Amino acid sequence: MENKDLIALVRDIPNFPHDGILFKDITPLLANPEARDFVVSEIADFYSNERIEAIVAIEARGFIFGSLIASAMRLPLIPIRKEGKLPYKTIKQKYDLEYGSSCLEIHEDALRSGQRVLIHDDLLATGGTALAAAALVSKLGASVIDFSFIVNLTFLSGEQLIFDKYSKPPHYLIKY
Amino acid sequence: MENKDLIALVRDIPNFPHDGILFKDITPLLANPEARDFVVSEIADFYSNERIEAIVAIEARGFIFGSLIASAMRLPLIPIRKEGKLPYKTIKQKYDLEYGSSCLEIHEDALRSGQRVLIHDDLLATGGTALAAAALVSKLGASVIDFSFIVNLTFLSGEQLIFDKYSKPPHYLIKY
Repeated sequence: MENKDLIALVRDIPNFPHDGILFKDITPLLANPEARDFVVSEIADFYSNERIEAIVAIEARGFIFGSLIASAMRLPLIPIRKEGKLPYKTIKQKYDLEYGSSCLEIHEDALRSGQRVLIHDDLLATGGTALAAAALVSKLGASVIDFSFIVNLTFLSGEQLIFDKYSKPPHYLIKY
Repeated sequence: MENKDLIALVRDIPNFPHDGILFKDITPLLANPEARDFVVSEIADFYSNERIEAIVAIEARGFIFGSLIASAMRLPLIPIRKEGKLPYKTIKQKYDLEYGSSCLEIHEDALRSGQRVLIHDDLLATGGTALAAAALVSKLGASVIDFSFIVNLTFLSGEQLIFDKYSKPPHYLIKY
């Protein structure tokens, strides 16, 4: 299997979640154990020499490959969730959406100072969610080593936003 | 490691999400790779002779161990999500909550007729969510073989509700 074989397992859904948006649906990939394993081993191999110490995964789809990457790398899995979902004491980070704003949270004891963190989500679009997650990691004193995505929607410039802030492009397997 | 060692990795959070509720927080378990692997191998071993053909995981926390179980058993992972989150054509199932109601969805092409399904969520409380997920699986013509949870809150009777309908108790690793 190669990266290009993954493309057949990502389904185009026109006009979701809004008119004019062509959504990239990874559920066919989730239903394919061999392809899923390929994705996980590609990501785990890419970071094998980076001394990553925790995988931070963003709710909800990021939990899926985030868990699998954490398992393959035998690392803690740290969830970042929408406001009001994490039960223990949290810190919060607001961020702008196309219309309005949203808020992410992380448990205040989820990471330790200096811990080397890989942030995972399934899809990179504008980069707003990923940078909000990174802000939470930094607020806890941990180090954002890199961002990992399955799909990069290059026309939405999230990659550039991350590069501008971290001087390093995010890692991804499929781009459009 | 044994089941009882998991108890130390589940944290009590008083008054979450409402006053008077003692929430069971599994984030310490998620942060422990050895314990996570133990959970997954216990569940995968328990079902090794059941000819399970797909893992159906319920958003959002169910995605975490659902993904890991699907990976360990080399099976398709099929997400069930809250209304409006799945991009392709879906079928819906409403269910009652303590106050009000909610709605779950599954993609209409997610399962095939007769497919042997294990439904996973992290926590069994009243059983309402699990039975709504099972109704979706049945509507697609697939077979609900069993329900798997990490934590069973026995005082909320979800176990009995599932037993009444499926003549089989759900599987879980920790009970309170």
